[in-house]
Amino acid sequence: MNSSPPVLAAVDWGTTRLRIWLLDDSGSVLEERRSNEGLSVASTQGYEQTLERHLGELQAAADLPVMICGMAGSRQGWVEAPYVPCPARLDEVLLSAVAVPSAGRSIRIVPGVAQRSDDSPDVMRGEETQLAGIAGQIAEGEHLVCMPGTHSKWLRTRDGVIETFSTWLTGELFELLSTGSILRHSIAPGSTDFMADNPAFLNWFSDALAAPEMLTGRLFRIRAAMLLNGTSAEESAAALSGLLIGCEIGAARRNMGGVEGAIQLIASGPLAQLYQSAFAHAGIKVVVSDADAAVRAGLMQASGHHFHPAGARRRQA
Amino acid sequence: MNSSPPVLAAVDWGTTRLRIWLLDDSGSVLEERRSNEGLSVASTQGYEQTLERHLGELQAAADLPVMICGMAGSRQGWVEAPYVPCPARLDEVLLSAVAVPSAGRSIRIVPGVAQRSDDSPDVMRGEETQLAGIAGQIAEGEHLVCMPGTHSKWLRTRDGVIETFSTWLTGELFELLSTGSILRHSIAPGSTDFMADNPAFLNWFSDALAAPEMLTGRLFRIRAAMLLNGTSAEESAAALSGLLIGCEIGAARRNMGGVEGAIQLIASGPLAQLYQSAFAHAGIKVVVSDADAAVRAGLMQASGHHFHPAGARRRQA
Repeated sequence: MNSSPPVLAAVDWGTTRLRIWLLDDSGSVLEERRSNEGLSVASTQGYEQTLERHLGELQAAADLPVMICGMAGSRQGWVEAPYVPCPARLDEVLLSAVAVPSAGRSIRIVPGVAQRSDDSPDVMRGEETQLAGIAGQIAEGEHLVCMPGTHSKWLRTRDGVIETFSTWLTGELFELLSTGSILRHSIAPGSTDFMADNPAFLNWFSDALAAPEMLTGRLFRIRAAMLLNGTSAEESAAALSGLLIGCEIGAARRNMGGVEGAIQLIASGPLAQLYQSAFAHAGIKVVVSDADAAVRAGLMQASGHHFHPAGARRRQA
Repeated sequence: MNSSPPVLAAVDWGTTRLRIWLLDDSGSVLEERRSNEGLSVASTQGYEQTLERHLGELQAAADLPVMICGMAGSRQGWVEAPYVPCPARLDEVLLSAVAVPSAGRSIRIVPGVAQRSDDSPDVMRGEETQLAGIAGQIAEGEHLVCMPGTHSKWLRTRDGVIETFSTWLTGELFELLSTGSILRHSIAPGSTDFMADNPAFLNWFSDALAAPEMLTGRLFRIRAAMLLNGTSAEESAAALSGLLIGCEIGAARRNMGGVEGAIQLIASGPLAQLYQSAFAHAGIKVVVSDADAAVRAGLMQASGHHFHPAGARRRQA
């Protein structure tokens, strides 16, 4: 890698995770840190202290600007970055990034987006920045975007504007059900590896896709299949994942409206693998973007709005 | 109450609860005990000891027979009463009650019912006895039966035979989501009282009934409604309950097939109130039977098969 200096510390700060990347002026990653100092930890030990310790260990210049997205901007976070209402233009969202007062360097937090509605209230924090990172792909026309995770988001955009979105508790339900429900007796901890390769994943996915309304009526079958048919813990984990993802995709397809082109899938790691495999099996075309790359690109764009031309600072030796 | 002597100790012994009724020869309740000594407690302190202590405190005769249903008959319970396979005749189920060996009195446990199938494996323990308790109402023709609970059961019967059934994790999901998920911040403990009276219950129920596939895509709205609209903890609890029950009834109606007459609803207490209110709102006719009375009647019938004419014993002074 070339010795181009960092121009930005890009930070994704969620409830349970903190990720920091030092980026050069082309957006390339120079350094990366991942820690479990999410909001629950950082709110106790101090946000600025936590951030500065990591930046110090990365030898970042004292005046390197920082752009943050995620729950750090919530009311319970560091500094509240009030929600931008839906329909939300992505560049307006980035332009609304809130300055952290009295910090020793330039720090801003990208706001979340709120769908204020009596019928379908919803909020996001962090996903708007990922979406901004693929702004070029959705600048024109209508798009359906799927962002899997603890709280999966499905969004409809038109000409780069978020028109409507909804949240799916898929990842959180997987965690809750496999550790806290009657299904915990059927699913061994750590049995979530290689789920995409397990035939049970696609079998349960297909059934759920065809009848997504049956979620609560199918969960117990995972337990009964173990009792009656001796299904293994690995198979049960893959079944639960297939069931939940099938319900998500099946219901979203019915309720989010169709689009002409492919669905934009923003995901990384094992989740990207599971959803790609699921969409392929359902015959639904997707364009995949890496979620980590997308959030960095979004933070870089926000930086261009606020810190430019401060991006040319020297990296400290 | 008349001084007719008890002829049976009827016992419903589940994972978390133990209920004992002393019944006279007409099936009327002479005495009742409820305790939290379900399987998790009783397996440690001893099943026979637990049962005999309660019977002693109830001053039951040393030779009063005992008929048990529920998880006490599971492999992890007191004595395994192997599942009767589906399609299951109710009288066959009761006739298959297993004797507890080496007990100081006549004790039998009613078996559960298993739907052995690669596609839709399912099991029940306890509900078959409730169903036997309303055998007269379902002796002829086809019936759809709804038994709400931690694990709601929906059954199709024909001429008194259980043809098929499925389990809905409705009650367990309510508990898990309101105490362990992100929704716990929106739902105060104990806020589940008077839910049926809260307009949010029927509002969320109606939406879920119309689109039961949207369950995982609607849960987060409860949180968002609190953040954006200031929804109260009581309203959120009623919303979650309405959402889950709406998904159950909506999906069961689509997938369990129709019946000509009313749905048989077997339930008691606040759950009976919620489901009655929900069915009425949906314009679905139901015939309600009290779940406690039904389980006692089922155990009494089983007793008739096995302990008769031992039912005329004297009550100890």
